[in-house]
Amino acid sequence: MKKKLEALNCLYPMPTVLVGTVVNGRPNFTTIAHVGIMNVGKQNYISISSWKGHYSNIGIKEKGMFSINIPSEDMVEETDYCGIFSGKDTDKSTIFEIFYGEMKAAPMISQALINMECKLYKTIDFPAHDLFIGEIIETYCDEKVLTDNAVDLSKVKPVLFDMHRKQYWKLGEPLAKCWDIGRGLKKGDMQNH
Amino acid sequence: MKKKLEALNCLYPMPTVLVGTVVNGRPNFTTIAHVGIMNVGKQNYISISSWKGHYSNIGIKEKGMFSINIPSEDMVEETDYCGIFSGKDTDKSTIFEIFYGEMKAAPMISQALINMECKLYKTIDFPAHDLFIGEIIETYCDEKVLTDNAVDLSKVKPVLFDMHRKQYWKLGEPLAKCWDIGRGLKKGDMQNH
Repeated sequence: MKKKLEALNCLYPMPTVLVGTVVNGRPNFTTIAHVGIMNVGKQNYISISSWKGHYSNIGIKEKGMFSINIPSEDMVEETDYCGIFSGKDTDKSTIFEIFYGEMKAAPMISQALINMECKLYKTIDFPAHDLFIGEIIETYCDEKVLTDNAVDLSKVKPVLFDMHRKQYWKLGEPLAKCWDIGRGLKKGDMQNH
Repeated sequence: MKKKLEALNCLYPMPTVLVGTVVNGRPNFTTIAHVGIMNVGKQNYISISSWKGHYSNIGIKEKGMFSINIPSEDMVEETDYCGIFSGKDTDKSTIFEIFYGEMKAAPMISQALINMECKLYKTIDFPAHDLFIGEIIETYCDEKVLTDNAVDLSKVKPVLFDMHRKQYWKLGEPLAKCWDIGRGLKKGDMQNH
């Protein structure tokens, strides 16, 4: 029996990220899990949805740049901290060791195993949120997360976000190979479902 | 030591969904994990990024409607199948038991524990993909996934997608409470990091 949930967003879990900006001359980090993938290929575009009152939005609009840093499980306290306290009245510039890539207004977190340096491509105005779409300019990763030259999520240990129960989750076990496990199904099998 | 990965998108894992459409008069389902959350609140907007050559795009553009269905681990074969074979030459209308909500061009999958009925709000043209932003009109869920009236992801058992290794993953264990675990950190603690 299906129950109606009044247009509730159920697109969870999502990867929790730390967004790096420079606001009023100071590096700042905020926590966002309402993210998106827009285009993959030669140019890669991703999005972050940030409540209009967030301090970070000022920096993104002014500088046209931001970074996306992927925290691991062992950074969950700092990650949550950056989502609780606003850069308006909290100096978050000394929490992490910072490095810069090509763009001086996209501070990145050394401890985060993966960092994506983004240039603002487009901003879309939603009722309560600014949607910032960024083009990834460069991606930095710690060599220890690579297995056979590909990023290995079992080494990244991302922090997964669930709004329903206000819960962070760990990544679990591998389930199946993509573009592979479904090949076993034939049309005849389907009709028995 | 950080290694450069040439602007690689590393925003994984993402929740894998089955997108329901009606194309040329027939219900069709395709698999997408390049999704996004745009706005939450009174109005909820989410996005799907679909390669321009996908058959489903025809239906979304023509009807202005689609559904998002959340498959569970036990649907991984059918989920993968819908991503491998195109509706152009494969009839995917009989794989699942279908129901409809308010909109007749947004077929939903009964077996999927959560369904979101979406109205196309905006389409953004990216180099290789159409980004379809939908407003959620209604959400349907199986009562058995609720715990204390909230969706319980440990019961949903979503299929998480990882492009790096072309791998589906299971959700793991709870890690910490959001807007909570970070409160334990004081400014003094931070400076020791």
